[in-house]
Amino acid sequence: MTQVSTENLYAQYKERMRRIADVRYASAVLQWDQETYLPSKGASFRGQQIASLSEVAHQQFTDLNLGTLLEELSSRNNLNSFQKCNVERSREDYLKQQKFSTGFVRKLAETTQKSFHSWIAARAQNNFKPFQDDLSNLIELKKEEAALLGYSNHPYDALLNDHDKGSTTQLLDGLFDSIRNPLRELFDRIMARPQVKDDFLFQFFPKQLQWDFGLEVLRDIGYDFEAGRQDLAEHPFTTSFNCKDVRLTTRIDENNLGSMIWSCIHEGGHALYEQGLSESAYGLPMGEAASYSIHESQSRLWENHIGRSLQFCEKYLPRLQQSFPQQLENISVIDFYKGINKVQPSFIRTEADELTYHFHVLIRYEIEKGLIEGSIQTKDIPAYWNELYYTYLKLKIPDDRSGCLQDVHWSHGSFGYFPTYTQGSFYGAQFHASALKEKNNKNEKQIWNEDNKALLKWLHKEVYEYGRMYTSEELCLKISGETLNTKYLLDYLLAKYDNIYQF
Amino acid sequence: MTQVSTENLYAQYKERMRRIADVRYASAVLQWDQETYLPSKGASFRGQQIASLSEVAHQQFTDLNLGTLLEELSSRNNLNSFQKCNVERSREDYLKQQKFSTGFVRKLAETTQKSFHSWIAARAQNNFKPFQDDLSNLIELKKEEAALLGYSNHPYDALLNDHDKGSTTQLLDGLFDSIRNPLRELFDRIMARPQVKDDFLFQFFPKQLQWDFGLEVLRDIGYDFEAGRQDLAEHPFTTSFNCKDVRLTTRIDENNLGSMIWSCIHEGGHALYEQGLSESAYGLPMGEAASYSIHESQSRLWENHIGRSLQFCEKYLPRLQQSFPQQLENISVIDFYKGINKVQPSFIRTEADELTYHFHVLIRYEIEKGLIEGSIQTKDIPAYWNELYYTYLKLKIPDDRSGCLQDVHWSHGSFGYFPTYTQGSFYGAQFHASALKEKNNKNEKQIWNEDNKALLKWLHKEVYEYGRMYTSEELCLKISGETLNTKYLLDYLLAKYDNIYQF
Repeated sequence: MTQVSTENLYAQYKERMRRIADVRYASAVLQWDQETYLPSKGASFRGQQIASLSEVAHQQFTDLNLGTLLEELSSRNNLNSFQKCNVERSREDYLKQQKFSTGFVRKLAETTQKSFHSWIAARAQNNFKPFQDDLSNLIELKKEEAALLGYSNHPYDALLNDHDKGSTTQLLDGLFDSIRNPLRELFDRIMARPQVKDDFLFQFFPKQLQWDFGLEVLRDIGYDFEAGRQDLAEHPFTTSFNCKDVRLTTRIDENNLGSMIWSCIHEGGHALYEQGLSESAYGLPMGEAASYSIHESQSRLWENHIGRSLQFCEKYLPRLQQSFPQQLENISVIDFYKGINKVQPSFIRTEADELTYHFHVLIRYEIEKGLIEGSIQTKDIPAYWNELYYTYLKLKIPDDRSGCLQDVHWSHGSFGYFPTYTQGSFYGAQFHASALKEKNNKNEKQIWNEDNKALLKWLHKEVYEYGRMYTSEELCLKISGETLNTKYLLDYLLAKYDNIYQF
Repeated sequence: MTQVSTENLYAQYKERMRRIADVRYASAVLQWDQETYLPSKGASFRGQQIASLSEVAHQQFTDLNLGTLLEELSSRNNLNSFQKCNVERSREDYLKQQKFSTGFVRKLAETTQKSFHSWIAARAQNNFKPFQDDLSNLIELKKEEAALLGYSNHPYDALLNDHDKGSTTQLLDGLFDSIRNPLRELFDRIMARPQVKDDFLFQFFPKQLQWDFGLEVLRDIGYDFEAGRQDLAEHPFTTSFNCKDVRLTTRIDENNLGSMIWSCIHEGGHALYEQGLSESAYGLPMGEAASYSIHESQSRLWENHIGRSLQFCEKYLPRLQQSFPQQLENISVIDFYKGINKVQPSFIRTEADELTYHFHVLIRYEIEKGLIEGSIQTKDIPAYWNELYYTYLKLKIPDDRSGCLQDVHWSHGSFGYFPTYTQGSFYGAQFHASALKEKNNKNEKQIWNEDNKALLKWLHKEVYEYGRMYTSEELCLKISGETLNTKYLLDYLLAKYDNIYQF
């Protein structure tokens, strides 16, 4: 009996993974459609269809033959490093999926679908109540998921680890503890200074003109519209069906110019990452993003370090003045820069400044931890939410839509996602500092020169092409020579706000 | 050992069918997206994703356990008539699907995907050549499919039967023979009369205003926009993901008002049928349309008997004059009616008048028959096409886009579809005559009274609610008391053109 060649086995593995990806991405198409174009009465059947696809993908992925194949492949010593990495990661994923029964996967998918539609309804009614029961069921399932996944210290760790390998409540508590005071002090210094003006952002800006501007910025940063598209959605998100079809969504508030612009660049950062992943590694770990935190490092880097920079204002204010001559006629570049970077406690996370943003995340982190460990009940979410917003931001939440109904994440069952925004912001700052260093601090200007996509090239080389080869921390070490260091974001914020508020 | 109850078995059967439907409809969503919103570079992966879903659905449907279940259920004598019908039809479908290997299904799906994209490319280049090789491969597979399905006399019969149970080349040859001369004679009588004017239709009609009008008409005929939507596509089509999500597409030619309007009503007829199917029979034969011919009977009925009627003109010309005051200001209702019913040989089937339309279908029928029996080679399609257009319509085809590249059907592998347009037109006329008879000839006016959707109600009662219970001919017999009779369409056309051309 001759042994099957590694090449043959690896080809079998690739083919299986490709087919599983086809089903997973088909489900992603149905979800994208659900959040963009689905007629209202189609919601119930759509939920069922998505649940069935989840079930099929789970069945395919937990097929024992795939397990045997992965086992055999990982024992072969003639795989190259990319192949080895694919097989290792797939084995981890396989073993993780084996922990869930198909029934559990289906139930989770169905409950998630129900919750999403309840969230839509609750938002329409501006009332948490219609969302409560489905969310409560979903949280019970997430607790079950945590138990199935396993953890050493805290059930929430299992979910955190699922978003960023190695992430734990202990690490995050430490991270938040280390930034709480520096951010608070910086905040107090800012509040002691005269406030900057941003009222020019809150005039009437017609939808179509905003839309056109958003597309132009996306094109400029290097997003390929032949390999993706933008649509409107209730809550902006980016999704990918393969690196040649990466779609983003946005929302437009005609009375707030900022709402669309920086959300658009944020999603653009996600989309550039997805479009930059390897085409030939479709369906394989090497064709996937490193982690949710690294994904957020990309969106936050583009949104803030690029999109809220003085260079951005220099380049785009004249362009905006062409579209909105009356609204922006007397605004100087420096006033624009100050206005878009105004620090002020606010209700909506996605529209928060770069400083108070992390208090929004912290609030969600604390609530999620409480929900998963059982110290907070679903029905008490609005009360906790409102209390924490008062504690951290001295804000009185006027209604649930401006409060605990603002984010889509919980309705999707994405517990453990929020912390990656803060982790991502820190990684983003650290990566950007590395990029600037490498380019002798001349990079940022180049980035906004359309002929020279220096930053995008750098991200390809340093981040995109490694897929899931490294964990967040390994990637950070490789890029910057050290693991996550809060100094980079804090220094960046201090310099920026010193410039704006002139301490 | 106790026997499993029929109720329990039937529930198992329903659940299996529901899950198969979830995958099939997911594939339909991916196809809809492909023809509406897919970015160009995403085509190749999308083709693969659709092929994988076809494979999964085929595997699920040909599972031997489903066969055993169907076998057992069909031996039970305590099923009600609806249940019995579901089980019988599912057994037929199961046995049919058993004839195809999963490999064949995948290959067919992949080749179809390739062909569709070649067709798009060929249309863009206005040249049949880039489509030829993929189409040729697809035709070989369709021949293989015909052989696998089996037939008594002619391989094309297998494909015809797949679109309309019982349909054969022999029957269709007979049908076309019986109408060729009456249509030709009627055509000659018309051509001997002074021609009517339709130049007012070929002015500039802005896209958005056309779009708005189309939506209004769809709403008026009873299409539910909360259970569907309309988008733009290269070739108009209707698709359904369940009766609560039935989507139609249209195209708009700013220099031809007619192009959108009657395509829109045609697709609306399909969509009303799909929205009218049973919600509780999702995934079951009783929740599916009777046949492609009956589907076309619905689209052609609404498009022609309603949309091209004098009553339609009376109701909608004033509305159109509001949108297009300059273009239509001097047009009377009767001139409008004459113009939109002008008989004239033309290149594009979907824009043809109700008489010459059937020559367009006949040409495609002859070519398909030849392709499947092997007497016509793929490379010779343009030559045959152009020759037949000269024979039947005395037209010289200027280019492939106005010729053999105009229809999407072959690129989808839909061989056997075209004849259902003519069959559907005859069924539609016969059904409409029955409806008019039942309503004492008062119906048509009522239909355009928004408070009284008499025809729609009648179609629900006579057609929609039976799903796939009857074959086309059985349904026709039930509704009209006789099988397909060409008299109804011919009488209708004679009366209409006598009115317009005043023989």
